[in-house]
Amino acid sequence: MTFIPKDPHFEARVRASFARQTINKALGCELTSVGPGTCVVRLPHNPTLCQQHGYMHAGITTTIADTAAGYAAFSLMPADSDVVSVEFKINLMAPAVGEVFEARAKVDRPGRSLTVVRSEVVAITGEKETTVALMQATMICLPSAPAKTATKAL
Amino acid sequence: MTFIPKDPHFEARVRASFARQTINKALGCELTSVGPGTCVVRLPHNPTLCQQHGYMHAGITTTIADTAAGYAAFSLMPADSDVVSVEFKINLMAPAVGEVFEARAKVDRPGRSLTVVRSEVVAITGEKETTVALMQATMICLPSAPAKTATKAL
Amino acid sequence: MTFIPKDPHFEARVRASFARQTINKALGCELTSVGPGTCVVRLPHNPTLCQQHGYMHAGITTTIADTAAGYAAFSLMPADSDVVSVEFKINLMAPAVGEVFEARAKVDRPGRSLTVVRSEVVAITGEKETTVALMQATMICLPSAPAKTATKAL
Amino acid sequence: MTFIPKDPHFEARVRASFARQTINKALGCELTSVGPGTCVVRLPHNPTLCQQHGYMHAGITTTIADTAAGYAAFSLMPADSDVVSVEFKINLMAPAVGEVFEARAKVDRPGRSLTVVRSEVVAITGEKETTVALMQATMICLPSAPAKTATKAL
Repeated sequence: MTFIPKDPHFEARVRASFARQTINKALGCELTSVGPGTCVVRLPHNPTLCQQHGYMHAGITTTIADTAAGYAAFSLMPADSDVVSVEFKINLMAPAVGEVFEARAKVDRPGRSLTVVRSEVVAITGEKETTVALMQATMICLPSAPAKTATKAL
Repeated sequence: MTFIPKDPHFEARVRASFARQTINKALGCELTSVGPGTCVVRLPHNPTLCQQHGYMHAGITTTIADTAAGYAAFSLMPADSDVVSVEFKINLMAPAVGEVFEARAKVDRPGRSLTVVRSEVVAITGEKETTVALMQATMICLPSAPAKTATKAL
Repeated sequence: MTFIPKDPHFEARVRASFARQTINKALGCELTSVGPGTCVVRLPHNPTLCQQHGYMHAGITTTIADTAAGYAAFSLMPADSDVVSVEFKINLMAPAVGEVFEARAKVDRPGRSLTVVRSEVVAITGEKETTVALMQATMICLPSAPAKTATKAL
Repeated sequence: MTFIPKDPHFEARVRASFARQTINKALGCELTSVGPGTCVVRLPHNPTLCQQHGYMHAGITTTIADTAAGYAAFSLMPADSDVVSVEFKINLMAPAVGEVFEARAKVDRPGRSLTVVRSEVVAITGEKETTVALMQATMICLPSAPAKTATKAL
């Protein structure tokens, strides 16, 4: 399915918001690409972000899946809006082992208020790709007014 | 509901596993307490782990909720076992704003293979507590054999 | 936590909406009780609503969990509103075997737009109760205008 | 992705299990098709299974989504096995209005024990199709021994 973005400048808007997320710099996340209703976020393997077996922690897998999902949704929202995660569910399907992790998100249904997005996290080692997690998320569109006011809308 | 742990040394086992998770040191997570079927994990606010509004990123909220949930489940598993997250769902209910975040997990139903756990994340500022997220998770008990073998059980 | 309903006549409003759901008559569901942020729905065992092992089908367990969750949320909504399920996640924790099934829902966080509710389904046989399912759900408050218009708000 | 079924007679096995589910006859569900890792279940609109606006109840949408998801997973399981739903999450994305509802499920990752499946429910009216719900589910493979024994494996 193809979506027509309401805001022709969606990519700049998404990239500006991504740049404001301090976590992306702290963890080393990169916004690889953003399209109308899609977004890809990359994170190289980092041995300091692991669980007890040396796999990337499920919370880190979730972090990139959620960021990609949020910005896939945000790409279809109007210029004067903001996006917040309402909830998500994620299945951790295989050990998160790889050189790089890539979260690939795609909107399933955009809505005026709520948008449903799926995000897949792939572990990449050389040419080999393994899906390690699948997320189904609900994002909400808020007015872009100062954050404090906006969140009252919830 | 009260649970009888199969392994009387569950606390040492949980603490040893927590110590092996490199992410806890990287983010500054602390294992506050662990009981039979319960676990509390704390994380002080960290401005480098935020989303675009300056709230803690949903992925970080999820990280501590998942860690607490996993170890609450692990506390009831046998001595020679390991725990892995199968899946979880989390509602982000309020902006993650506070001095400290605490994830409080409690097993709802322990099983030989699968355990259902709920985890609540509370933002604490002085005396004030606000629930910012609620997770419902499924954990799996694996043999504690070398991780590579163990994950084949999935 | 105790909630103050915005509409003092919430019980009559919830019961009227429950009565409009044709499924309740078809399956034999009964609205046992409704309070501010709580709701209980009952369904006697019915051998015609089973899965392949003779347990109640997960979809039926879900039906009463969702109805109870929706009306627990609706009890705290304003008089001129309506409620629709946005999404839910449910763990089926034990075989749904019993004389009667009871879904017990309780609001965790009411919101102007979105409400988070948990719903537990218990199988009852004589004096014995077994929790068979746990749901975590998100409900949305819509204006009570004609349904067709209302749903555009999504 | 294409899957190779372990049991060449998977279709007969799935159809036999579907026939044992009394709910399918009670509601009027039909097993439209089953392939390796896929399953489609149909249900005509039924005014006696509705919620307060006259849409099909979310629990019924969930019932066919879950049945299709379970049998998509079961198609890839060994001959002497059985399938049970561990948990699922479903987004209700549009009012369930249509002449016929079709749940289309597809395995994302089959596992020896746990299988992750997605199921989409489409409302069909004449030529028009609308996605009304999206489910992400976890199914478990159990030995096909007498049900009572099998469920202890959980």
